Amino acid sequence: VTRIELVALPGIPRVESGDDLAALITAAARTAKIELGGGVLVVCQKIVSKAEGRTVALAGVEPSARAREIASEDDKDPRHVEVVLRESIRIVRRGHRVLICETPHGFVCANAGVDLSNTGAPDTAVLLPKDPDASARALRGSLLATHPGPLGLVISDSFGRPWREGQVDVALGCAGFAPIDQRTGSHDLDGRALMVTAPASADQLAAAAGLLMRKDAGTPVVWIRGLELVGDGTLRDTLRDASLDLFR
Amino acid sequence: VTRIELVALPGIPRVESGDDLAALITAAARTAKIELGGGVLVVCQKIVSKAEGRTVALAGVEPSARAREIASEDDKDPRHVEVVLRESIRIVRRGHRVLICETPHGFVCANAGVDLSNTGAPDTAVLLPKDPDASARALRGSLLATHPGPLGLVISDSFGRPWREGQVDVALGCAGFAPIDQRTGSHDLDGRALMVTAPASADQLAAAAGLLMRKDAGTPVVWIRGLELVGDGTLRDTLRDASLDLFR
Repeated sequence: VTRIELVALPGIPRVESGDDLAALITAAARTAKIELGGGVLVVCQKIVSKAEGRTVALAGVEPSARAREIASEDDKDPRHVEVVLRESIRIVRRGHRVLICETPHGFVCANAGVDLSNTGAPDTAVLLPKDPDASARALRGSLLATHPGPLGLVISDSFGRPWREGQVDVALGCAGFAPIDQRTGSHDLDGRALMVTAPASADQLAAAAGLLMRKDAGTPVVWIRGLELVGDGTLRDTLRDASLDLFR
Repeated sequence: VTRIELVALPGIPRVESGDDLAALITAAARTAKIELGGGVLVVCQKIVSKAEGRTVALAGVEPSARAREIASEDDKDPRHVEVVLRESIRIVRRGHRVLICETPHGFVCANAGVDLSNTGAPDTAVLLPKDPDASARALRGSLLATHPGPLGLVISDSFGRPWREGQVDVALGCAGFAPIDQRTGSHDLDGRALMVTAPASADQLAAAAGLLMRKDAGTPVVWIRGLELVGDGTLRDTLRDASLDLFR
């Protein structure tokens, strides 16, 4: 592959619980005269969560003593912290007013991915999808009913990183291709075996789409055209086993 | 921005110490009929290091006792480990035959970025550039002498990550734009202030280019067209201060 193109689908409306994302995306693709085939669609987690009703009204949240304690120390909304704790299986690090959590999916991220921005309503928290791989698979299946394919699908979110400031989009779920492009057995240009080279394609695609998904832009869906899709798998294949991890 | 394009520049030859990268890139861009203006050029660290002579012949490396000890325990080449230790200011983690080092630049990565693949010669290690921001600035300056600009420049490398398998390309150096797209003061679609949203543009660009920079592809330079370049800065702006870091 020597050339790829990224297009932000225009006119995706605000998404509400129960909305049919496949229909919204199909309409947007038609407007942009894009046939969803031979590429990867990257969809922002926020609209997937909203469509799935994964939101919590903070007014109805009763913070635990632990949530109130953290909120007080870190100057946060105790109801937000309570939701974060409920969405976490473990706090990996805490400090500098940042709460790095491990989610039931196995993601390690700030606030267990619970977000208060672009929620569509005041005092509403948006949670991560319950099973982003399943969400990606279902959305891909719906789209393939009316589009030619082949089609890869990535659900992405902006995560902070250790050691570096700023956020980069990573994949939370995927379908239709292998999220890790295993090169074991291939060779570099000197003929040296590339034993440990395994580009994390799903995360690279998410990061690339992030260039067109600024939070104030209203473009939560990006179409990436021109890539060859190889293999199959779920995003879980990307998550390192805790026993092999040096930072947990 | 609603559309961007990535093109791998064709025909970049093997790079040797002392090669003029700007001339090689200019020739490749001409072949591809690309005018380097209004976009960002992402250049793989490997060819920058080679052009700068940042290679070490392992035959001349005398491993220290510490390097021999690590190499023996981890089944590695002691001369490689020795070079890694020389390029590190600190070992951040060690385990599972992986050596996570902090480099003098402030990067935290496996083997201090010292690489044995695609080195162009057997038993040769390629080091990271001494000052990748300076390398980016110099290369950009040379290119702007014969290209219209505006031009952003990123020097990228593939890094592993905590918690996730596989590698994603990140920026080691940049010039001509702000590597962190500060959004403090901007608002989300609900009018809620986006206090902590700061996309790491340089890293997103590196990751995107990585989609076209597979190690076996021989395409170490990718042109990204259609982005608006904002601000200015060096990649150092992306490195989190150690005192604020929760994973060091």
